[in-house]
Amino acid sequence: MTRQIVRGHPSTMGDDYQLNTTTLIRHAARTHGDQQIVYRLPDGGWERYGYADCYERVCRAADALRALGVSPGDRVGVLDWNGRRHFELYWAIPGLAAVMLQMNLRLAAEDIAWVVGHSGASLIAVDESLLPLAESIASRVSGVKGWIVLTDRPLDRIETTLRPVHHYEDLLAAATPVADWPVVDERSAYSACYTTGTTGRPKGVYYSHRAIYLHAMAEAAALGMTLDDCTMLITPMFHAQCWGLPQAATLTGGKLVLPGRYVAEDTGPLITAMMDEGVTIANGAPVIFQPMLDHIRAHGLRPDFSRTRLLAGSAEPPLTLMRGFHEATGADVIHGYGATETTPLIAVNRWKRSLKSDLDPEELWDLRRKQGLPLTGVDVVLRDQDGRDQPHDGVSVGEVCVRGPWITARYHDLPDSDDRFTADGYWRSGDAGTIDEHGYLKLTDRMKDVIKSGGEWISSIDLENAIVAHPAVAEAAVVGVPHPRWQERPVALVVTEPGRTLSEQEVRDHLAPRFASWQLPESVLFVEEIARTSVGKIDKRRLRAQYRDHYISGSGDA
Amino acid sequence: MTRQIVRGHPSTMGDDYQLNTTTLIRHAARTHGDQQIVYRLPDGGWERYGYADCYERVCRAADALRALGVSPGDRVGVLDWNGRRHFELYWAIPGLAAVMLQMNLRLAAEDIAWVVGHSGASLIAVDESLLPLAESIASRVSGVKGWIVLTDRPLDRIETTLRPVHHYEDLLAAATPVADWPVVDERSAYSACYTTGTTGRPKGVYYSHRAIYLHAMAEAAALGMTLDDCTMLITPMFHAQCWGLPQAATLTGGKLVLPGRYVAEDTGPLITAMMDEGVTIANGAPVIFQPMLDHIRAHGLRPDFSRTRLLAGSAEPPLTLMRGFHEATGADVIHGYGATETTPLIAVNRWKRSLKSDLDPEELWDLRRKQGLPLTGVDVVLRDQDGRDQPHDGVSVGEVCVRGPWITARYHDLPDSDDRFTADGYWRSGDAGTIDEHGYLKLTDRMKDVIKSGGEWISSIDLENAIVAHPAVAEAAVVGVPHPRWQERPVALVVTEPGRTLSEQEVRDHLAPRFASWQLPESVLFVEEIARTSVGKIDKRRLRAQYRDHYISGSGDA
Repeated sequence: MTRQIVRGHPSTMGDDYQLNTTTLIRHAARTHGDQQIVYRLPDGGWERYGYADCYERVCRAADALRALGVSPGDRVGVLDWNGRRHFELYWAIPGLAAVMLQMNLRLAAEDIAWVVGHSGASLIAVDESLLPLAESIASRVSGVKGWIVLTDRPLDRIETTLRPVHHYEDLLAAATPVADWPVVDERSAYSACYTTGTTGRPKGVYYSHRAIYLHAMAEAAALGMTLDDCTMLITPMFHAQCWGLPQAATLTGGKLVLPGRYVAEDTGPLITAMMDEGVTIANGAPVIFQPMLDHIRAHGLRPDFSRTRLLAGSAEPPLTLMRGFHEATGADVIHGYGATETTPLIAVNRWKRSLKSDLDPEELWDLRRKQGLPLTGVDVVLRDQDGRDQPHDGVSVGEVCVRGPWITARYHDLPDSDDRFTADGYWRSGDAGTIDEHGYLKLTDRMKDVIKSGGEWISSIDLENAIVAHPAVAEAAVVGVPHPRWQERPVALVVTEPGRTLSEQEVRDHLAPRFASWQLPESVLFVEEIARTSVGKIDKRRLRAQYRDHYISGSGDA
Repeated sequence: MTRQIVRGHPSTMGDDYQLNTTTLIRHAARTHGDQQIVYRLPDGGWERYGYADCYERVCRAADALRALGVSPGDRVGVLDWNGRRHFELYWAIPGLAAVMLQMNLRLAAEDIAWVVGHSGASLIAVDESLLPLAESIASRVSGVKGWIVLTDRPLDRIETTLRPVHHYEDLLAAATPVADWPVVDERSAYSACYTTGTTGRPKGVYYSHRAIYLHAMAEAAALGMTLDDCTMLITPMFHAQCWGLPQAATLTGGKLVLPGRYVAEDTGPLITAMMDEGVTIANGAPVIFQPMLDHIRAHGLRPDFSRTRLLAGSAEPPLTLMRGFHEATGADVIHGYGATETTPLIAVNRWKRSLKSDLDPEELWDLRRKQGLPLTGVDVVLRDQDGRDQPHDGVSVGEVCVRGPWITARYHDLPDSDDRFTADGYWRSGDAGTIDEHGYLKLTDRMKDVIKSGGEWISSIDLENAIVAHPAVAEAAVVGVPHPRWQERPVALVVTEPGRTLSEQEVRDHLAPRFASWQLPESVLFVEEIARTSVGKIDKRRLRAQYRDHYISGSGDA
C-alpha cells in the first residue's frame, strides 16, 4: 500500500545526495583513518589495521569484483565468520550497487542451496574453513559462476573441488583501488537475508542502502555510541548485518573488534579481548552471554566493564544474567527487540532518567526485561483482531505491527505473503504485546499462542507464569481451544510438585487477584507431563490438537 | 550539477517512508510523552510540560493554521524568542508541508521586510514583545494577509495596529487537534533562513525535511546525545533552526530548556536553570558563554557541569574561555563549525581517544581550538584556486568546500550565484583552511583575505598572529596587495608597544623559523594605528585599497 505523499515548497538542499554505505566507509577512512579494527586469526592470534588501510583493501576488492564481472544489481554471496575480509565485503559488494547475500552457515545445506538459487547469486566468497560446506552445495547452485576463497594461505595450498576458484588476497594484490565509486541510489538493495520460519521455505528480505544507513544512525543514537566506543561483534555477521553494529561503529568512527570464529564453549578469548581492547559495546544472544559470565566467575576475574553495554537480542535475557553481569563487571545487559524483517532493531531497552528516581531497584530490574522503547523513525502499533489500534496502557494486548524506513514492506519474489502485512503498510510481527504509559513495549505471547475469547485476547504466557508461581506447581501450560460460544477458551495443564496436590479451584483462586474472571481457565487438568518440542519448548501445537474437542464435546464447563 | 545515480537491485524495505519532522515530534509524544520541556515566561518565572502535551498543542496549532488557509508550500513567518510557542510552530507549520520562515529580529527593519517579501510569506506569528518591530514592517509587506500574536495575555489587552490579527491561544482553544497529518515529502522545504552577508541582499536557504532530520541525527551522534541529556537552547531559535538542537533533543527523547528572551548582560537565569534543571548540553556563541563564566566566578558558584557539553559556534572560542569553563565547572566547551547554508553543522571538535594519550595537555587544548571533525554524511574538501583537492597534511591550504544532504546546493530565487558552488556540486564556504592527518579541520583565513602569491597561498592570519607574538608588537595586520610578478605579495602593518622600536629585518627574523622564505612580507610598515570596522575587526578591505599600489609603484622590494 502506498500512502499519498504531499509535496510542499522546493528546498535548496543537496537532496540528491544518496544515503549509501560508501559514504560511511569513505568518511571513516578520511576522518578516522587511524582508528583501529582488531581481528582474530584462525590460529587465535590478533592483528589490527586502521579504517584507512581497510578502505584501501575495500577499494581493491571492488576493483577485483568488477573484473570478475560483478555489475549493479548482481547478487554476491558471503559464507564467513566475523573477520576482516567479511567486513571488507560489507562495503565492497554494495559499493558496486551489487547485493551482498548473507549466507547463514548454520542452515541445512539444502536450505542454503535453496536460498542461493532463489537470490540468483552468481558469485560466492567463502572462508577456507567453510569450503566443505560450500562444496556440499556446489552441485545444486548452477547459477553460481565462480568462488572466491578467503584465506591467508596461498592458493596452491588450498584443496577444493570448487571451480572456477579465485583467491581473495591474490585478487587484491593484483587490483587497482577503485576511485570512481558509483553513486548508488539509496533505494537499491545493499544486502539480502533470508528468514528461517518454522514453516515453509526461507523468505527473502532485501535491505536498501537507505535502510542500513538510517538504522545505523538510530542504533548509534539509542546506544549513545560515539568515537570513544569500542564495539565487538559477537552476533554472526551473516545475520541481519550483525544487527547494524558494524555500520554504526563505522559511522561514529569507533574502534571495532572482530573475534573471528568462536564457539559458546570457548568464550575465554572474548573476555580477554574485552579487557585488552577496552570493549564498551558488544552484541549477542543471551545464550552466548551466559557462558561469558560463567567464564568470568569460574576464573575469578574482576574486569571493569562499567562503561559497557551488552546488546542482547534473539530472546529475552534472563534476570539472573542481567544482574549477574552487572554485579560481576558493572556491564549493562540491554535488551533489544527485532527480527530479520526489521534490519533488525525495532526497540531497545533504555532507562528513562525520570524512572530511575520513581521506581525501586526491583521494579527497575523488571523494567529491563521488557523489549524496550521503539527507536525513533519506527512506528509501532498494537492491533487487535479487527485491526483496531490498542491504547498504550500496559494492559491492552495487540499484535505488534511495525512500519518505517528499515522495516520490510514485502518479501522478495513471494506473491502470497499479503497476510504478513496490514492494509496500511505495517509488517505484522506475529508477536502479541503491550506498551505501557512510559512507552515500553512488552511481548506477552506469540500471536499463534494468544487465546481469542469472545472478541478479547488472553495471554497464555501470563497465565502460565502465574500458575507456575504457585509453590505446589512444577510445570504448567495453557492453550486456547475451540469453544462453541466464545470462539476459544483456555485450558490449563498442570504438573504438581512431587508429593503435592492441588484442586482446580485452588488454581483459579490463586489466579483470581491478577486476572479478570473471564480470563480464568474453566478447566485445569492435572497431568503427569507436558509435551515439549525437540528443543524443550512447550509444544503448543500438539497440545491444541490434543484438546481440540475439550469444550466442544462437553467435557468442560461451558 | 547532478551526479549520475546508479540504481541496483530493488529492495523490499519501506523506502517510501518519509524523513519528515512530524515523525520526530509524534515519536517523542508517544514514547517520551512525560519527558519535560521547561520554558521561561516573560516575568522570569519557569513552567514545564511534557512532549505529549506539547504535541497536543502542535496538533491544535496545525488545525488553526489550516483554518487560516495555510496550504502545502505556503510560507509562514515566525518572529519570536526561545519559547514554547516558537517550539510548537517548529512542528506545526512544516507538518502541514508549509515553510517556517525564520525571521532574524536583529536585522534592520528594512532587511526583515525585504526577506518577508522575497519569501512570499502570507502569515506571520509574532511575540507580543516584538509587536513594535512587526508594526514597523507591516506597511512594506503587502503579501502578508494576517498576523498571529503569541502571548499569554488576552487579546483585548493587546494594543496593536496589525490587521487582521489573531490570538494564538484563542486559536488553539477553538481548534480540533489534527489527526490526519499529511505525509510530507522529505524533499519539501521545512524552513527558510536568509544569510546576512556583508555584501548584497540576504540570500535565501530553504532547508528540506530530509536535511533537518539527517542533520539532527548526525548532531546527536556527534555529541553523544541520549534520552539522559537535558538541552538548553541559548542560540536564537530564529537562526538556522537553533543549530538543530531542538530536533536532536526531540529525536533522542531528551529534556529541553527554553530560556525565553535573555540578554548577554543578564546571564544569571541561564546559570540558575543549568543547575536547577541539570542541563548537560547547551549551544551559543562565545560572546554569550563568556559572561556566563564571568557570572559563575563573580558569584563564587561551584556548579558541577562535568557531564555538560557547551557547543560554541559563530566564532572560535578563546582558549581562556574553554579552560576557564572547564576549571570552574567541569564543562567542556566544544567548538562547532558551520553556516546558515549548512543547516548549520559541518564539523564538531571531539577528542579522539587515541590523541588523549598521544598529546600532552597543552597540545590537547590547542587541538580543541580547531574547527573539528567533519560530521558523517558531509563531504569536506580543500580546493586550491585551480580547483585541485589539497592533501590532508595539516599544512596545505585550500578553500573549504562542502557537499551533503544538509548542505545547500543553490540559493532560493537567486540566479547569479553559480560562483558560490563548484562545478561538481560543492558549496564554497569562503573559508580557507587545512585538514590534518587526524581529520581535524582548521580555518586559517577568509578566502578574500588569503594572499595569492605565485600560485601558492599565504595565510594573512597566521602571519598576523606570529607578528603579534613578538613582545615589542602591540597590533599587526597583513594584507595581500597586487604585485607585477607574483600576482600578490603580503604587506605587514605593525603598531609597536609604547616606547619600543623594531626594524623590518627584526620582524622578518622573528618570522623566519615558522614560515617559508617566500611567505615572508617584503614590506613591514610601522604605523600609528590600524584601520578597523565598526565592530572592531581589522578593515582589510580598506587596507587593501590603501596599499593597492605599494608594490606596483616600486616603493616595495620587488
